[in-house]
Amino acid sequence: MAEAFHGVDVTRVRAGVRTHERDRAATEEPLEVRLHDRPFAVIMRTPGADRELAAGFLLAEGVLKSADDLGTIEYCTDPTAEHPENIINAKLVNGSAESLDKFLAERRNVTTNSSCGMCGRLTIDSLKTNLPPLVIPWTVPSSVIVEIPDRLRQAQAVFDETGGLHAAGLFTRDGTLETVAEDVGRHNAVDKVIGRMVIQERLPLNNSILFVSGRTSFEIVQKAFLAGIPMVAAVSAPSSLAIELAEECGITLIGFLRGQNFNIYTHPERVTT
Amino acid sequence: MAEAFHGVDVTRVRAGVRTHERDRAATEEPLEVRLHDRPFAVIMRTPGADRELAAGFLLAEGVLKSADDLGTIEYCTDPTAEHPENIINAKLVNGSAESLDKFLAERRNVTTNSSCGMCGRLTIDSLKTNLPPLVIPWTVPSSVIVEIPDRLRQAQAVFDETGGLHAAGLFTRDGTLETVAEDVGRHNAVDKVIGRMVIQERLPLNNSILFVSGRTSFEIVQKAFLAGIPMVAAVSAPSSLAIELAEECGITLIGFLRGQNFNIYTHPERVTT
Repeated sequence: MAEAFHGVDVTRVRAGVRTHERDRAATEEPLEVRLHDRPFAVIMRTPGADRELAAGFLLAEGVLKSADDLGTIEYCTDPTAEHPENIINAKLVNGSAESLDKFLAERRNVTTNSSCGMCGRLTIDSLKTNLPPLVIPWTVPSSVIVEIPDRLRQAQAVFDETGGLHAAGLFTRDGTLETVAEDVGRHNAVDKVIGRMVIQERLPLNNSILFVSGRTSFEIVQKAFLAGIPMVAAVSAPSSLAIELAEECGITLIGFLRGQNFNIYTHPERVTT
Repeated sequence: MAEAFHGVDVTRVRAGVRTHERDRAATEEPLEVRLHDRPFAVIMRTPGADRELAAGFLLAEGVLKSADDLGTIEYCTDPTAEHPENIINAKLVNGSAESLDKFLAERRNVTTNSSCGMCGRLTIDSLKTNLPPLVIPWTVPSSVIVEIPDRLRQAQAVFDETGGLHAAGLFTRDGTLETVAEDVGRHNAVDKVIGRMVIQERLPLNNSILFVSGRTSFEIVQKAFLAGIPMVAAVSAPSSLAIELAEECGITLIGFLRGQNFNIYTHPERVTT
């Protein structure tokens, strides 16, 4: 099984001084959940307790009405599967193929999801090959980057008051705030700022920096990539898959941006010190 | 349009002393996204910039290949809609009903989502009426509650090292840790601890306390409810809908559990001081 961490290379910037070190990032990988050998859902998760995750997910989704409905729940044994450690197959007690078809058909008539970038994709590879990486050669001084969090906070109406909202902001290369959005959902805040630019017909955002108040997941980097944003910065940690995708997509990924300090995980050439 | 905050009643416990106050919680409400007047997805979000959210979401989901694909994107004008302020209808340029059907059919063949409790449901009401509220009369002293975060931290293998993982734990009523899980996804960590109990056939968890390291959303409370857990505590803030659902489901909801202090948002009768 995959580990809960990945070793990663990081460029640390401390008060304008750059060092190179090894660090660890929390692992993020897709888990495919199958019902009676058929694809049901993909969940981005940290490997470990995968059977438990799938069981809890199926309960929350209403597939299991009670624990009694669960027959078997096991890692994939299909010899042709490329990553069987990322596939869990569940079988229901008394769950015939026909009753399952009926349940799924009803469910999909009102199909829905939260703002998850994996929808319609069973593997990360199907995304990666779709578009060429961003080749955008501009640079930003570290002195501009360290001012971004304060500038976002000044523009936030709600965040500090309830402690319950995430924020996302788009900045120009000289550190000017272009737009900001807040939401209980981290991904929603990013969708709001990018969506505003979609409506204003300002894509691709090749000259923008995306800043988020929380952590950076695969999905955040994916959203930035689809909008053409070559630099993503965050207050907290990136996941392993966020780093991997940013590297491949040509995106500069910055984390732990606090005070005068930050870490650069990918494409550090866009930051001057 | 709904506000970004809700006023809420809160019982504050400070070093064992209880006071009653008014507070504010970040608003969380479902937004239904329609494509050419047909339901496409439900996103749990904070009201505000809803057209922007829907546009960004459709870009990230691959429905919009570029900003040029977007025709109109407007609040619902269907006079029969109960909450038109929570419905956005998007129309694509050149998007015939047939081409859209084809796209959606292909997409759903590999359907997926992250661990979102709204799946298959278009309104919160469809959940609320399914099951009776939890009527479980036990109590816990506040001295037990304030020890929970430290006990979880001691059991965490990864969290402090990378800063990139959420944690969830199940505790007994005397504060003993039963099980813990970590994940880049907050909802995944909850699914893992509940799913472990599903596999062990230990549901309903009527004597357990669920503790999460982050914020509490509608979905976290929903997962607890479906598992029969009557008390949910978190380090950070709950959303308005988490509070509303906990109230209706008979769940004691605790937030900002830090040091000797915490807030009780619903069913404070289960906490003795």
